[in-house]
Amino acid sequence: MSTYPLDTLQARLGHVFRDQSLLLRAVSHRSHGADHNERLEFLGDAVLNMTVSDLLFDQFDDSPEGDLTRVRAHLVRQDMLHRLALSLQLPAVLRLSDGEARAGGAQRPSILADAMEAVIGAVYRDAGYEAAQALVRRLFEPLVSETVTQAWAKDAKTQLQEWLQARRQSVPEYRIETTRGRAHDQTFVVVCSVAGPGIEARGEGRSRRAAEQEAARLVLEQLSSTPE
Amino acid sequence: MSTYPLDTLQARLGHVFRDQSLLLRAVSHRSHGADHNERLEFLGDAVLNMTVSDLLFDQFDDSPEGDLTRVRAHLVRQDMLHRLALSLQLPAVLRLSDGEARAGGAQRPSILADAMEAVIGAVYRDAGYEAAQALVRRLFEPLVSETVTQAWAKDAKTQLQEWLQARRQSVPEYRIETTRGRAHDQTFVVVCSVAGPGIEARGEGRSRRAAEQEAARLVLEQLSSTPE
Repeated sequence: MSTYPLDTLQARLGHVFRDQSLLLRAVSHRSHGADHNERLEFLGDAVLNMTVSDLLFDQFDDSPEGDLTRVRAHLVRQDMLHRLALSLQLPAVLRLSDGEARAGGAQRPSILADAMEAVIGAVYRDAGYEAAQALVRRLFEPLVSETVTQAWAKDAKTQLQEWLQARRQSVPEYRIETTRGRAHDQTFVVVCSVAGPGIEARGEGRSRRAAEQEAARLVLEQLSSTPE
Repeated sequence: MSTYPLDTLQARLGHVFRDQSLLLRAVSHRSHGADHNERLEFLGDAVLNMTVSDLLFDQFDDSPEGDLTRVRAHLVRQDMLHRLALSLQLPAVLRLSDGEARAGGAQRPSILADAMEAVIGAVYRDAGYEAAQALVRRLFEPLVSETVTQAWAKDAKTQLQEWLQARRQSVPEYRIETTRGRAHDQTFVVVCSVAGPGIEARGEGRSRRAAEQEAARLVLEQLSSTPE
């Protein structure tokens, strides 16, 4: 493998590794061989949890512990790590076995999220806590406000149900219209229909729940733009 | 409250707080008032998880991620934190409402474990990552070898079942004989009986599972000291 993609990754991370073998290990899936990233992922998961906790503790100095826990859970979940891995273009540098590569492993959310954690763990091992903290803050600060809105707002399904109950209308129905993609990397399409006003909408998401939320949100939009 | 017990605690921690109000908050249960320890507990939980992960990553440099995860889970669980809280004599400095104090709150494992995490979070806020790491290493290093033995050994119930199966004897039976104490702070007494050799033993523990393990361990001891 040319080292060029790894140089690009280091520029994106804002961190040049003293020990380049740490970075190489961090982007090596277990299918690639014995020197893989699972131990670094174990460490990186803890570094991430710690630095995100610290970030939230600082930034929301009035919020109770329950709110911080909820926002943290949103920030460190797989789809967030997957997005960050894509923004750092980890698929271009991932080291996989030939079989795993042919099977599309470089695009698998779980593999990318694990590699993202391993990279954070590798920065911690290479340069210590402050360096890892700086990286996590840079990556996650832009995501915090978006996440807070999601985590602290009532979710769309709850809002929709309350809207309908307040008007004594029947509960919405959700059904899966279709799923696309392979196991562990599926997209769900869910239709939410509301019998009373005769409205329906389609939502897509990486989980059934996410698709339902999106569908409920779209129904809510239609309801609130329709004169009662 | 006299400051003397807090001075003693700081001596035991090997850390004198620049900001004494952080320490005071860390030992204040939510029943005591608005300035309580739940946010510091949120932070301390993450600091603990991170520093223990780092300790295990260093100390077991050949162990796969799964083993590290198992040992970490044993080290950071409530009963371990409860033991550490007792060894630091946290009950003497805990700040509780009068009602909670009368109800024995200063001895409740969950309250003590939470305060232990809050103290770790407070050291982190007061003096940074290295100080918190040094504290956690000092507290946890003596527990690691004991825990590794427990976590890597097969548990007693599994061993007992395998011992009996190898001799084509019927499976052991477990029944709760009695429970003592209030909800969230109960002690379970479980009897494990083995029909074939006609042996039984009583185990006590803070959970049903812990009591069963203890009972199974005692039955195993009798079986292995009895000529077959």
